[in-house]
Amino acid sequence: MSQTPGEPACSVLAAPLTATEAAELASGFAALADPGRLRLLSLIAARPEVCACALVEPLGKSQPTVSHHLKVLTEAGLITGDKRGRWIWYRVVPQRLDLLSRAIEQPAGALA
Amino acid sequence: MSQTPGEPACSVLAAPLTATEAAELASGFAALADPGRLRLLSLIAARPEVCACALVEPLGKSQPTVSHHLKVLTEAGLITGDKRGRWIWYRVVPQRLDLLSRAIEQPAGALA
Repeated sequence: MSQTPGEPACSVLAAPLTATEAAELASGFAALADPGRLRLLSLIAARPEVCACALVEPLGKSQPTVSHHLKVLTEAGLITGDKRGRWIWYRVVPQRLDLLSRAIEQPAGALA
Repeated sequence: MSQTPGEPACSVLAAPLTATEAAELASGFAALADPGRLRLLSLIAARPEVCACALVEPLGKSQPTVSHHLKVLTEAGLITGDKRGRWIWYRVVPQRLDLLSRAIEQPAGALA
């Protein structure tokens, strides 16, 4: 995504999406379409940053499975990691999640 | 989802998700993880309700493909349809989209 926070996000509910906008958003939602990845994201979001070494035990999945999910989340731009010594430390990229959230957000007053 | 619009939505960013919460949210995001389904959703959201017969041409996909995507969106609770004569008329279920949007929404001030 080339948008910066502050720019208007494209919205599924405001106007029919172009094929390009739809493909971009769908790739983001695909990264969220797995319970293990959502749990990982919530574990990472709970702190400023989290060592990959601290994610295997709470998720209850194998190290290769956790590594795979972390790779998918990173490639989708939802988290970012820094390698320090043996381990990568991850943190959430709030702008990317915000664009996805706003893309399916109701226009003000729509739920009133 | 058993939640009604005034209840707090579970949030990926507020606290680690339980396995049940993660599975429920992931099934919603899976329905959004396809560009054709997102475009359909945006076409349906553009009007109070839309005849299935009016969705094939703008999407540029075959009738069976459109029917399949409409079924996935309906099963995920994101749209609902009423059969009238030959055709089903669809409308968006805003509460379900709102729960997904709020689940990945930033806490107030997080992007400031």
